Amino acid sequence: MKNAKISNAVINRLPRYRRYLMELQKKGVEKISSKEFSNLIGYTASQIRQDLNNFGGFGQQGYGYSVESLREEIDAILGLDKEYRMVIMGAGNLGQAITKYANTIKGGFKVSGVFEVNKNLIGTMLEGIEIMDYEDIVEFVEKEKIDIGIICVDRENAQEVADKLCFAGVKGIWSFARTDIEVPKHVALEVVHLSDSIHTLAYRMNDIKKTDAKKGGRKKTD
Amino acid sequence: MKNAKISNAVINRLPRYRRYLMELQKKGVEKISSKEFSNLIGYTASQIRQDLNNFGGFGQQGYGYSVESLREEIDAILGLDKEYRMVIMGAGNLGQAITKYANTIKGGFKVSGVFEVNKNLIGTMLEGIEIMDYEDIVEFVEKEKIDIGIICVDRENAQEVADKLCFAGVKGIWSFARTDIEVPKHVALEVVHLSDSIHTLAYRMNDIKKTDAKKGGRKKTD
Repeated sequence: MKNAKISNAVINRLPRYRRYLMELQKKGVEKISSKEFSNLIGYTASQIRQDLNNFGGFGQQGYGYSVESLREEIDAILGLDKEYRMVIMGAGNLGQAITKYANTIKGGFKVSGVFEVNKNLIGTMLEGIEIMDYEDIVEFVEKEKIDIGIICVDRENAQEVADKLCFAGVKGIWSFARTDIEVPKHVALEVVHLSDSIHTLAYRMNDIKKTDAKKGGRKKTD
Repeated sequence: MKNAKISNAVINRLPRYRRYLMELQKKGVEKISSKEFSNLIGYTASQIRQDLNNFGGFGQQGYGYSVESLREEIDAILGLDKEYRMVIMGAGNLGQAITKYANTIKGGFKVSGVFEVNKNLIGTMLEGIEIMDYEDIVEFVEKEKIDIGIICVDRENAQEVADKLCFAGVKGIWSFARTDIEVPKHVALEVVHLSDSIHTLAYRMNDIKKTDAKKGGRKKTD
């Protein structure tokens, strides 16, 4: 695989390719031409070819893509053929919501522990997982070989918790805290700003009202 | 306000400006030069000026930005000075997680109802809200003047639920379903693909391992 410098844009598109391939698989579609795939997913056929060529390219001229094998290849590229052990940091409302959500994630992603500073919550159960003392996080990450720390604490504490997780040796951080954080270069970071998303939605709703959009047309997720 | 055609990129940056301004306000900072703001947020000063000029521009030459008034202006641009009534569609694990999360959203966003097809769940309580029958959604949206529908159903049912919400008259849809959906042009749409985000994280973790990244540097949310 020749994936020395894959752009963020390509990496962000891969999970989307996978989602469409999964839907095709569920519908029993076995192969798809690059033109059909392009119409479906909304990228040009040349864009799709270019994206996949970053990883060696998978289509066959005049045949198109085998849905199952392309999906398996993308799974392997994304690392979804592996297992990931995760901890949730923070058992407040956000941590409770994300723990609940995390249990619905398909594939090898597994929550192994929830950590909290609030003594009233430590020792109680959340989604079948015992809430543990934040003091014990470093030892737990080392002993349980935790891969991913999910940050669900207040914005004021997010950076400190990230530092602690990185020190303990996680390989990736998934943050839902309402702030931006920094991590060492050898740790992967994905930040989900749910409040940014609903604020953008609010803007668009008001903008549509203001510009008095013509009704009738359809638009798709971009 | 001259906001006829604001690009998506600008709109997506506005909530981020707001977050940084909120943090400055909490720290008691009253004004900030465009250079300091640029260092903090990681966009160039000219980018910031350009973005804000879309809405009339707010800085004063030689003074910089007043943190409070810029934050208030952005609130008004985003429509955060208004109230939004929301319904959650789907009371399964995803719907439970998002309902829990939705109750933590600051500002005028309020969950007024949760809707479900599963007869065993209808009539029970979720986060203090009674779960109602999906059959009654159109009437509820009209009567309660619901602005936003939050979609938390299976991918197979997401489009149908979106169609129903749009028919009922919501102005915006916030979707967490694991699929892309289409809405009429007069409805605003924001889709959060949480599984795409963790898949991207998995890729980056494996990519860092493969390229054996040099340790020591720091990186920030982008």
